[in-house]
Amino acid sequence: MASSGRLSGIFTPNIVPLDSRGDIAEGELRRYVDWLIDHGVHGLYPNGSTGEFLRFTPEERRRIIEIIADQTAGRVPILAGAAEANVRETISACEYYYELGTRAVAIVSPFYYRLTSEGVYAYFKEIADNSPIDITLYNIPLFASPIDVPTVKRLAEECPRVVAIKDSSGDLPHMMRMIAEVRPLRPDFSFLTGWDAALMPMLLIGCDGGTNATSGVVPEITRRLYELTMAGKIDEARDLQYRLLPLFDSMLYSAEFPEGFRAALKLRGFEPGRGRQPQSAVQQEALTRLADQLQCLLAAEGFTKEPIGGCGVNGGVDPQQVARIVQQVLSQLKS
Amino acid sequence: MASSGRLSGIFTPNIVPLDSRGDIAEGELRRYVDWLIDHGVHGLYPNGSTGEFLRFTPEERRRIIEIIADQTAGRVPILAGAAEANVRETISACEYYYELGTRAVAIVSPFYYRLTSEGVYAYFKEIADNSPIDITLYNIPLFASPIDVPTVKRLAEECPRVVAIKDSSGDLPHMMRMIAEVRPLRPDFSFLTGWDAALMPMLLIGCDGGTNATSGVVPEITRRLYELTMAGKIDEARDLQYRLLPLFDSMLYSAEFPEGFRAALKLRGFEPGRGRQPQSAVQQEALTRLADQLQCLLAAEGFTKEPIGGCGVNGGVDPQQVARIVQQVLSQLKS
Amino acid sequence: MASSGRLSGIFTPNIVPLDSRGDIAEGELRRYVDWLIDHGVHGLYPNGSTGEFLRFTPEERRRIIEIIADQTAGRVPILAGAAEANVRETISACEYYYELGTRAVAIVSPFYYRLTSEGVYAYFKEIADNSPIDITLYNIPLFASPIDVPTVKRLAEECPRVVAIKDSSGDLPHMMRMIAEVRPLRPDFSFLTGWDAALMPMLLIGCDGGTNATSGVVPEITRRLYELTMAGKIDEARDLQYRLLPLFDSMLYSAEFPEGFRAALKLRGFEPGRGRQPQSAVQQEALTRLADQLQCLLAAEGFTKEPIGGCGVNGGVDPQQVARIVQQVLSQLKS
Amino acid sequence: MASSGRLSGIFTPNIVPLDSRGDIAEGELRRYVDWLIDHGVHGLYPNGSTGEFLRFTPEERRRIIEIIADQTAGRVPILAGAAEANVRETISACEYYYELGTRAVAIVSPFYYRLTSEGVYAYFKEIADNSPIDITLYNIPLFASPIDVPTVKRLAEECPRVVAIKDSSGDLPHMMRMIAEVRPLRPDFSFLTGWDAALMPMLLIGCDGGTNATSGVVPEITRRLYELTMAGKIDEARDLQYRLLPLFDSMLYSAEFPEGFRAALKLRGFEPGRGRQPQSAVQQEALTRLADQLQCLLAAEGFTKEPIGGCGVNGGVDPQQVARIVQQVLSQLKS
Repeated sequence: MASSGRLSGIFTPNIVPLDSRGDIAEGELRRYVDWLIDHGVHGLYPNGSTGEFLRFTPEERRRIIEIIADQTAGRVPILAGAAEANVRETISACEYYYELGTRAVAIVSPFYYRLTSEGVYAYFKEIADNSPIDITLYNIPLFASPIDVPTVKRLAEECPRVVAIKDSSGDLPHMMRMIAEVRPLRPDFSFLTGWDAALMPMLLIGCDGGTNATSGVVPEITRRLYELTMAGKIDEARDLQYRLLPLFDSMLYSAEFPEGFRAALKLRGFEPGRGRQPQSAVQQEALTRLADQLQCLLAAEGFTKEPIGGCGVNGGVDPQQVARIVQQVLSQLKS
Repeated sequence: MASSGRLSGIFTPNIVPLDSRGDIAEGELRRYVDWLIDHGVHGLYPNGSTGEFLRFTPEERRRIIEIIADQTAGRVPILAGAAEANVRETISACEYYYELGTRAVAIVSPFYYRLTSEGVYAYFKEIADNSPIDITLYNIPLFASPIDVPTVKRLAEECPRVVAIKDSSGDLPHMMRMIAEVRPLRPDFSFLTGWDAALMPMLLIGCDGGTNATSGVVPEITRRLYELTMAGKIDEARDLQYRLLPLFDSMLYSAEFPEGFRAALKLRGFEPGRGRQPQSAVQQEALTRLADQLQCLLAAEGFTKEPIGGCGVNGGVDPQQVARIVQQVLSQLKS
Repeated sequence: MASSGRLSGIFTPNIVPLDSRGDIAEGELRRYVDWLIDHGVHGLYPNGSTGEFLRFTPEERRRIIEIIADQTAGRVPILAGAAEANVRETISACEYYYELGTRAVAIVSPFYYRLTSEGVYAYFKEIADNSPIDITLYNIPLFASPIDVPTVKRLAEECPRVVAIKDSSGDLPHMMRMIAEVRPLRPDFSFLTGWDAALMPMLLIGCDGGTNATSGVVPEITRRLYELTMAGKIDEARDLQYRLLPLFDSMLYSAEFPEGFRAALKLRGFEPGRGRQPQSAVQQEALTRLADQLQCLLAAEGFTKEPIGGCGVNGGVDPQQVARIVQQVLSQLKS
Repeated sequence: MASSGRLSGIFTPNIVPLDSRGDIAEGELRRYVDWLIDHGVHGLYPNGSTGEFLRFTPEERRRIIEIIADQTAGRVPILAGAAEANVRETISACEYYYELGTRAVAIVSPFYYRLTSEGVYAYFKEIADNSPIDITLYNIPLFASPIDVPTVKRLAEECPRVVAIKDSSGDLPHMMRMIAEVRPLRPDFSFLTGWDAALMPMLLIGCDGGTNATSGVVPEITRRLYELTMAGKIDEARDLQYRLLPLFDSMLYSAEFPEGFRAALKLRGFEPGRGRQPQSAVQQEALTRLADQLQCLLAAEGFTKEPIGGCGVNGGVDPQQVARIVQQVLSQLKS
């Protein structure tokens, strides 16, 4: 993908492996980057939500991009998460990631404080006016101030540096409204979905790609799902989307985010280490059970062996139980 | 569609025209039913949310179904909204609509009180065990107790009379989870979407049809959108879906529901009368402005003439303004 | 309380006992009314949320008011829930309850559809302009369209018939904002809280009383709590408020509303019968456990004997478990 | 307040004045600290939400505590906000603030990611087990993962270092449930409210004090409100609480938090500088109007002169307009 083209394809918001002291496991991270590229991801998206940007120090966040830029060596484009404590620090990060040669940065909307549309606009405008590098807006209303459609349009109109939005709302009509508003004005503007459960339909209504956490675990599936959908092979793509769904649901809802993805990554042969957010005894037991469940799901796709206890029907997964967990977590998250 | 087949296609949740005294305008209702059938709707869905079932008395609700069943005379299947004050009254309505020859009933989840999953299950189970007619579950979490995936599965497993769900959540992965859970057990079970803004993608991931308020205003578009999508003509279908979106948004968000649909129906040559929910002076002015906007949108599709003041670009509609209104209403509704 | 005075004191939103066929148990209802008056409630509030107004037919709702007006015979004022399917039916109910001699009606904000402030205003304005009887606005944002502060003020200014608001939001600053806006304009306007858990502080910041479901079960406590608070005996009142809290929480959150209140009423010597909302086997077992818990709480207050199995410390109630249930239900309700 | 006593009184979550370059204005901060202590605040709470802890770098957060500890010189206790990127960094901050002689730290629940109760527990447990200094839990469910009642109880039971909770939910029954659960086990545990609009009733149901942003602007009022309430002078306290409410509402809801407090601080004679969150032109105009409104409110209390244009009735403030803004913001925040 040339610098002039629209951002497209599947970008992996990669987890950062940690060593036994909880520090960045550089070697394992480099090995993971190679594996992702070898398995077909179109790009990398370090310092995203899955990458737990918030749990690293400012220095560590820079180090993560340095390692990944170095290891990638131009093979795929990098979308570097650049949100820092305030606009000054964020612009400084933009400058640094520009020097490192990343394709663009991604900046999450202000979080903790819930800003109004005007506040969200002012934040991105200030950054865009001072950034040397292209910017992807990152809308994740569950965690951060929502970026609404009029604000996306306003930024797209006023800021040439703003070239894309990553939207993790999973709200399909919302995505359509954004595309309808922005595409006529900015044909170069890219729309990426962060909601893996709706990847196929999002691509079908006009998205250019996604930044999808499942691509960090099963890059083969997300790549193929992307290609089948873009080729109009709807029946095959739908089948794959349905197979991706329980994997996504299990990893997302069965444990504190992103612990499910960490557990799955281990099953693909990596050593992600323990996360920085402490886990209670109850949570650790739940993670062990989840690992078995994930192993069955991955075994059913041919990516791993079955766990010692075997899997039985449905790959050992009780979909009813997954459904219950999804409901519970959704109701908690929404409250 | 035979009684044994899966419910499919676009069902119109029709508005009930009222006369100057606020009573059911029977003649206009009959004329409207004929027009809808002539313009290609696959079925009718009286006493839905668009039909303002709640604002009629129990006697009026029965009268509405009587008129429609009589006028339809078997040309298309009828899905009769049958929710009453309690299970006894609801079962009694089911019996009556069975005698009238409707295809099935649709029953909204208990509202006002927010029931737990167990309560929602118990409610539908009691009705399903005593109904002589097929039942469509109606999930509209914005207005009523949500029907979650495990509950849909449980009812589908235990109740042969429960044959479908109409889901107005607009949540695509939610629909996929339901289909993944229920279809293997009950191939006859039908999934209908009530969210017009996502009709194409909902059909593409496996829905059988929809109960869509826009089909009461532009039945030509929803019919064609359904057919193009089912035929796999994705590009043409997507174009139509994008044209349907501003119509849906304008009618849904620019006025108190379903006043926008009432205003649009008038533009199609019917006299829907004034709704039963009083409108303030401010609201009435807004409805007048909305009518002009809708007329431009409908004129752009060739269904009406332009309003006297003309329409200008975009059919006179300021998409930015529509977008603002949508955001405001969404934020209010969610709160 | 004279007709000219501000509505004040504790009004009981009474449950309606049902017989074995599910019909109104008139004799038991009359006995219950006498008992409530004898135990000190200041007024009655039939056809409220606790009274399950929505699960009765329009005819039954009228019959309930007839019975209570007849049995009360002027001993205490009646606040009659008068919400019907639409404004015409509601005004007709207002006229009927006026003829029956009730003190005022209470009308819940439009529910199911979520109206904007303008819609809520137009609804109450139309009713107030045509009602022969005083009107209490009923704000319960968890179940119905919220009535915001500017709308309360607008209605208080324009409609002499609107004389009070019952607010079940439990939001103390919200109540203060209403009082600050309305009291200077309408010194006769009454503010009633429907949130028993905050009765004492609500009275202390200026409320005139409450319509409290717990008063239907422990009228002795709510009466005393009201009197202690109004007399400025803060320490004693606070102690009572803390004792009321677990009772309220247990009845409200441990079962589908208002089943917990029904179970408790049985322990006070009445036969409320089974509710009209079906209960699953799981729910019925939970209700049995709840009954034991409630019996212990009531025994600790001297209102009943302990259950056969005894109560142990804390009246057999595990506050941790109650707390867990409260959290779960709150998170579900909010979602 | 001795180190062994329960934390009590009003702690000020102070704003940090910034200079023209956006850096900490040390001199002005020291002058502000003196003024607050001279005007009666019981303690200081730097690096809270009002203090915009998130918009400073880790180094700046430490510097803020250094300055304040130095300037305070033991005159009042300091509650130091100590949340950092992860538990390791947070524990390190705890150690540092212990060495600086602060009374305790306050740690906000994990934000951005919404953690379950188990995750919140595990987070605080890990910190409490490793901190040399007393810890105040900080619950602000609007911005961060909620800390529910069972979790507070669990932490109070297991962690002697956890000595207090600051709760900014404004939910009175929630506070009562916490007090009912925890006080019997931990009489030394302190309950502080962060919701100024309910300060009087919160104190009356048993809170020990508050961390209230308004105390940074009108410390005279909050001090007096605290003292009147604790002395049982309900009528005078209520009057003061009602006068505090429009000040709180105006500062909180009329601008992006905490810009309203910054604007008011300027009116008290300090130079807070411009905040680090950029403001759009529209927002800057709104802040100018707000400043006039606040000046009138402060003039009515005798703290400033009226603005040049005068104030008229109500101190120039249109309460209806304030009410509208409050409603709008509340509905946006909740969505």
